[in-house]
Amino acid sequence: MKKIMNAPETFVDDTMEGIIRAYGDKVTLLNGDKRVLISGYPKKAGKVGIVTAGGSGHLPLFLGYVGQGMIDGCAIGNVFASPSSQKIADMIKACDDGNGVLCLYGNYGGDVMNFEMAQEMLEFDDIKTTTALGRDDVASSPKENATKRRGVAGILYAYKIAGAAAEQMKDLDEVTRIAQKALDNTLTMGVALSPCIVPEVGRPTFSIEADEIEIGMGIHGEPGIEVSKMMTADEIAAMMVEKITGDMPLGAGDEVSVMMNGLGATPLEELFIVYGKIHSILEERGVSVFMPHIGEFATSMEMAGMSASIIKLDAELKELLRAPAETPFYTNANK
Amino acid sequence: MKKIMNAPETFVDDTMEGIIRAYGDKVTLLNGDKRVLISGYPKKAGKVGIVTAGGSGHLPLFLGYVGQGMIDGCAIGNVFASPSSQKIADMIKACDDGNGVLCLYGNYGGDVMNFEMAQEMLEFDDIKTTTALGRDDVASSPKENATKRRGVAGILYAYKIAGAAAEQMKDLDEVTRIAQKALDNTLTMGVALSPCIVPEVGRPTFSIEADEIEIGMGIHGEPGIEVSKMMTADEIAAMMVEKITGDMPLGAGDEVSVMMNGLGATPLEELFIVYGKIHSILEERGVSVFMPHIGEFATSMEMAGMSASIIKLDAELKELLRAPAETPFYTNANK
Repeated sequence: MKKIMNAPETFVDDTMEGIIRAYGDKVTLLNGDKRVLISGYPKKAGKVGIVTAGGSGHLPLFLGYVGQGMIDGCAIGNVFASPSSQKIADMIKACDDGNGVLCLYGNYGGDVMNFEMAQEMLEFDDIKTTTALGRDDVASSPKENATKRRGVAGILYAYKIAGAAAEQMKDLDEVTRIAQKALDNTLTMGVALSPCIVPEVGRPTFSIEADEIEIGMGIHGEPGIEVSKMMTADEIAAMMVEKITGDMPLGAGDEVSVMMNGLGATPLEELFIVYGKIHSILEERGVSVFMPHIGEFATSMEMAGMSASIIKLDAELKELLRAPAETPFYTNANK
Repeated sequence: MKKIMNAPETFVDDTMEGIIRAYGDKVTLLNGDKRVLISGYPKKAGKVGIVTAGGSGHLPLFLGYVGQGMIDGCAIGNVFASPSSQKIADMIKACDDGNGVLCLYGNYGGDVMNFEMAQEMLEFDDIKTTTALGRDDVASSPKENATKRRGVAGILYAYKIAGAAAEQMKDLDEVTRIAQKALDNTLTMGVALSPCIVPEVGRPTFSIEADEIEIGMGIHGEPGIEVSKMMTADEIAAMMVEKITGDMPLGAGDEVSVMMNGLGATPLEELFIVYGKIHSILEERGVSVFMPHIGEFATSMEMAGMSASIIKLDAELKELLRAPAETPFYTNANK
């Protein structure tokens, strides 16, 4: 296992230590806990809080979006494992400024269970919470079972858009409505070329042949739709657009944002090659692209592969996507 | 060869096509040439131009730094190959606004030859040019032969600092002096864990055992100082600081910026693990860190590994490093 680390059991703590050493003037540990990160950016009094949580191993997701105009807190677990309900409850409490907290996270069993327990605990503290779940992975379940879908990279758009709504001092119901609208209009389709290794497990999450590509694989190595022979970039782009628009039709006059996300080991060059084709297919259909995001936004450590996320925009979502945001890992410079 | 592309011979053009589709409102192709990218950001009249050039396969280096407050133009060749002198000359011409152009690039034979030819051609056009070479790779040659060293990730600091100086309307001699000062105060030390594959070659650039690490390898697979058994993150951090400070001593009261750069396949988590240790070693010596940069700034496609660059700052360099900059790939949000 060729990882640059000290020991599997210190992987997450050492990562968090590095983040704090680098950006401790902008984000802080809640009571020194290396599993709960809280924004240290200036915050308007009474702003609705937005929090998330999930397993480690996906940087910049989730920790990287704690900042201004995005999310206020993030609890993390071990690699690919949910944090405890107690840590989630502590975080929600720390991010409440009297007007409630939106819990915005991906649809995974452990996270759902721990958030629900945390939210129950907090009822006694009179802290209002709401929930919005990322379920953008179109390959993880058919449309008729869309509520079972997993959340992947597309949740970034919901962080950005809901974060801007909270920044505008909208109330909890309104921030929740907007987050849900962003989530409902976002779908993601991914491919994987190689597995990753969870440090404490020490072996690859799955195996794949040298001339094969796994279509629709989850970011923890969950099985995809099919294993195919290697495809060209243009074929992958066309397949991604087909899978997404098969579920969320797009036509002339529609406006979207597209995120090409590298899973870890895939060169930026390859993301641009596929992005160019996706952009051109959309353009041919009369769909315009606003504020593309191309880079690594939600990874699986050293997994090779990429995903495309498309969010269908209306005037409200577009304005909020464009609004300023700043975290140590994400800056909206694309205004 | 598991690459997401259409064909090896279209790898670079397809990448550039994707960049233009994504960011064509901010950067443009010079006369439609898919090997020369020019800033489309608003530019002050008479500003000194700054250009660079180099092989493809290193994104965000070099193309990603074309923008405002960084560089004005970039010519690229095939993967790991220099662009032609003619393209370099065309680019310099396009980036001259009457007050000359600084050619700021890494110390590689092909690039030096082609820049020198281009600069000679332009003497007849009465375009003033100066040169500053990135030679930050401390492992590529011993100190007594420091002028033979290769340029790697550390050149980012020179782009940022010289770019800010040009933005302040300093003249060509002054921008060149400042670029050279930034370069003279920057050293980089890297390690590699796995090779990459040049698309048109189709085989790995080098081979390395599953339990080995190559210390000081160049970003094109040039041989390093030694091949060692796998090391811990803390050992790597200590080795990097030793190699750099052995050549550029740092002590109490000194201020630096540190860049942890992923070579392509290495997870962001691992960069933070090593960064945390480097930061703590520097702090123990009384050295303070300003504006750390942690991420992928200069890659070798899917190579696994990382480098640390340290720039020793004085008041002038610090102010210019902090100044605003914006490109599609780099935003100075760390003000």
